[in-house]
Amino acid sequence: MPKLSMKAASMPSSPIRKLVPFAEAAKSQGKHVIHLNIGQPDIETPESARNAVKNTDIKVLEYSHSAGFESYRKGLAEYYGKNDIEVSQDEIIITTGGSEALLFGFSVALNPGDEVIIPEPFYANYNGFATAAGINIIPVTSTIENGFSLPSIEEFEKKITPKTKAILICNPGNPTGYLYTQEELEKLSELIKKKDLFLFADEVYREFCYDGATPFSVMNLKGMEENVILIDSVSKRYSMCGARIGALISRNKEFMDAAMKFAQARLSPPTYAQIAAEGALKTPQSYFDEVTIEYVARRDIMVDGLNKIKGVNCPKPKGAFYAVAEFPVEDTEHFCQWLLEDFEHEGSTVMMAPLSGFYATPGLGKKEARIAYVLEKKELEKALVCIEKALEIYPHTTY
Amino acid sequence: MPKLSMKAASMPSSPIRKLVPFAEAAKSQGKHVIHLNIGQPDIETPESARNAVKNTDIKVLEYSHSAGFESYRKGLAEYYGKNDIEVSQDEIIITTGGSEALLFGFSVALNPGDEVIIPEPFYANYNGFATAAGINIIPVTSTIENGFSLPSIEEFEKKITPKTKAILICNPGNPTGYLYTQEELEKLSELIKKKDLFLFADEVYREFCYDGATPFSVMNLKGMEENVILIDSVSKRYSMCGARIGALISRNKEFMDAAMKFAQARLSPPTYAQIAAEGALKTPQSYFDEVTIEYVARRDIMVDGLNKIKGVNCPKPKGAFYAVAEFPVEDTEHFCQWLLEDFEHEGSTVMMAPLSGFYATPGLGKKEARIAYVLEKKELEKALVCIEKALEIYPHTTY
Repeated sequence: MPKLSMKAASMPSSPIRKLVPFAEAAKSQGKHVIHLNIGQPDIETPESARNAVKNTDIKVLEYSHSAGFESYRKGLAEYYGKNDIEVSQDEIIITTGGSEALLFGFSVALNPGDEVIIPEPFYANYNGFATAAGINIIPVTSTIENGFSLPSIEEFEKKITPKTKAILICNPGNPTGYLYTQEELEKLSELIKKKDLFLFADEVYREFCYDGATPFSVMNLKGMEENVILIDSVSKRYSMCGARIGALISRNKEFMDAAMKFAQARLSPPTYAQIAAEGALKTPQSYFDEVTIEYVARRDIMVDGLNKIKGVNCPKPKGAFYAVAEFPVEDTEHFCQWLLEDFEHEGSTVMMAPLSGFYATPGLGKKEARIAYVLEKKELEKALVCIEKALEIYPHTTY
Repeated sequence: MPKLSMKAASMPSSPIRKLVPFAEAAKSQGKHVIHLNIGQPDIETPESARNAVKNTDIKVLEYSHSAGFESYRKGLAEYYGKNDIEVSQDEIIITTGGSEALLFGFSVALNPGDEVIIPEPFYANYNGFATAAGINIIPVTSTIENGFSLPSIEEFEKKITPKTKAILICNPGNPTGYLYTQEELEKLSELIKKKDLFLFADEVYREFCYDGATPFSVMNLKGMEENVILIDSVSKRYSMCGARIGALISRNKEFMDAAMKFAQARLSPPTYAQIAAEGALKTPQSYFDEVTIEYVARRDIMVDGLNKIKGVNCPKPKGAFYAVAEFPVEDTEHFCQWLLEDFEHEGSTVMMAPLSGFYATPGLGKKEARIAYVLEKKELEKALVCIEKALEIYPHTTY
């Protein structure tokens, strides 16, 4: 048969890929697997989004404008305005998920072989988009000791080479839940300007900020109009991951003109999903208030509960719905597999995402795992009991 | 500002891009522009597709499986079975439009710098996907004199270099409407096997075959299991271009395993659109029969009408809903612009797609234009009168 491409060979798998067959085997044995490993919220998609699709009287499901419905872009610009981000509809391209926004962004800004610096641990799918675009990710390590705050500017600067074209941050962060401060972002922007780089920011968890913290968008960094590229998505905001609606946003006109050509090549973003996303714009503030109260409660149960378990350390995140915890084990990949394969407590076990797959530097994150607190509180409490009991009998617990 | 990538600079625009402002200006002057330039059918999307979405009681719009809903893949495999194409659900990955299927296919099969041979004229968006994947399109010219039949195998063979990894055909063809015969495809398959290449076939117009012709799928070529990659889409079949649902299909397991990693990186195809596409599987045969009768009538009006106009030559296509016509002018780019800018007949004018943008070889197709006969018959008749009158007064008519 003909040989496949090098990209095909190097395309990474998901960090939990190896665990999936063990989870399936556990389920087929009748175990109840509590999924702390995925970021699929159980929160209902707002009614206004679902009703918009139910009530549409579309007869011919036509292509939309390649940048997305004008009415939706207009509505989205208003949404950003309410969130203190001033953008016009012409500075927005609607994409098929945040995924496509990032792929367009990488393709427009970086040549194959170019480098993007990303604080690690980072959302593992960035690896896939980098491979697809033929670019290289250069990590700068953040640590659990510092709660995964932004590494020092010196650390970033050390990684800059003639091939560096961009820095990418995720704020609030997946997998860490860390919310960058305005001060951190301003320091980073000085470096961006000094080295004339692009700053990509994935702000899809904007609505998930807790304890009175407000997110500071890179769009509000001064003098960065030509450098800042915002990646957004409705997936998490309205619990509609399956819609596949995102946005690529920038005030850099030349960048957006080039991105439009990529958007035109793939014709248009999905129509029904745009109708849903436009409907979602009518979601009342009370929805977000309720969601926030719910997530704070879940986070507190999960993080406080983890920190009460002997040998476990889990910094309390201010955003998103993930936390990274350090466990008293040598290797969370083994521990997570063991949890599925060899453990159960009252018929239940837990699936977590080992963190090594979220680091680009080999060997890091071996004691850490990502926990998504997107399940109802009862399940989270059950999960905590499982983890505590498991550590008591796991053969390689180190406390 | 930071420099953009080379891909951003070389990403092609649509062949009609230059005409769009002239069409807009014509409309703002009150002219009625008859759009023969676009492949957006006016046929209604089947009710079963629209109702499936209306009636869904989905509460949380979750990610689907990265390969698409299992139930949809199963249903789709049955659809292929009915069309004499035997595939299993595991040989199908649901994609965001045929666009994404082709992008995945190129990325898995070709390295940046590799070559894919495509008979020209070809669907201009292939250029965009090739640029995105960093690969090069090598054209083999088909001619209007031969009704755009497959160029000889010798012509293909001449173009093969050590960088050639694949041949791509579109069958029935956009923009030519030409339907390849089984004999033509079998000859091509011998070359594919001899040179150990991939054969990509875009068969999205399968349902649009006329005069009793039946399409022969590359999936039915013998001994080509490892080589054949089918690109499909529901866009044209069910007049649901805006859904953005396509499929990547192959019996080559290694190829599909690699493609799955690309599918996983972008998480999932759009959920609502999959619900619509699954609903569309219930479309009764009468829908296709009616559509075929309508398109044959439209084609006959358009193509017979064009051939009656002095100096116009238009081979009668057996498939899709496009025709390529040769006009008695030096340059259809100029003629098409003039039609919008300087011509009207009883308040109407016509927009066509100049064919030079569908050729990769510079200078070809200058007398040709693509006509999409996707409008109701009355409009097509009006368009024919416009074209005839226009040629009579166009300053550069050559008859």
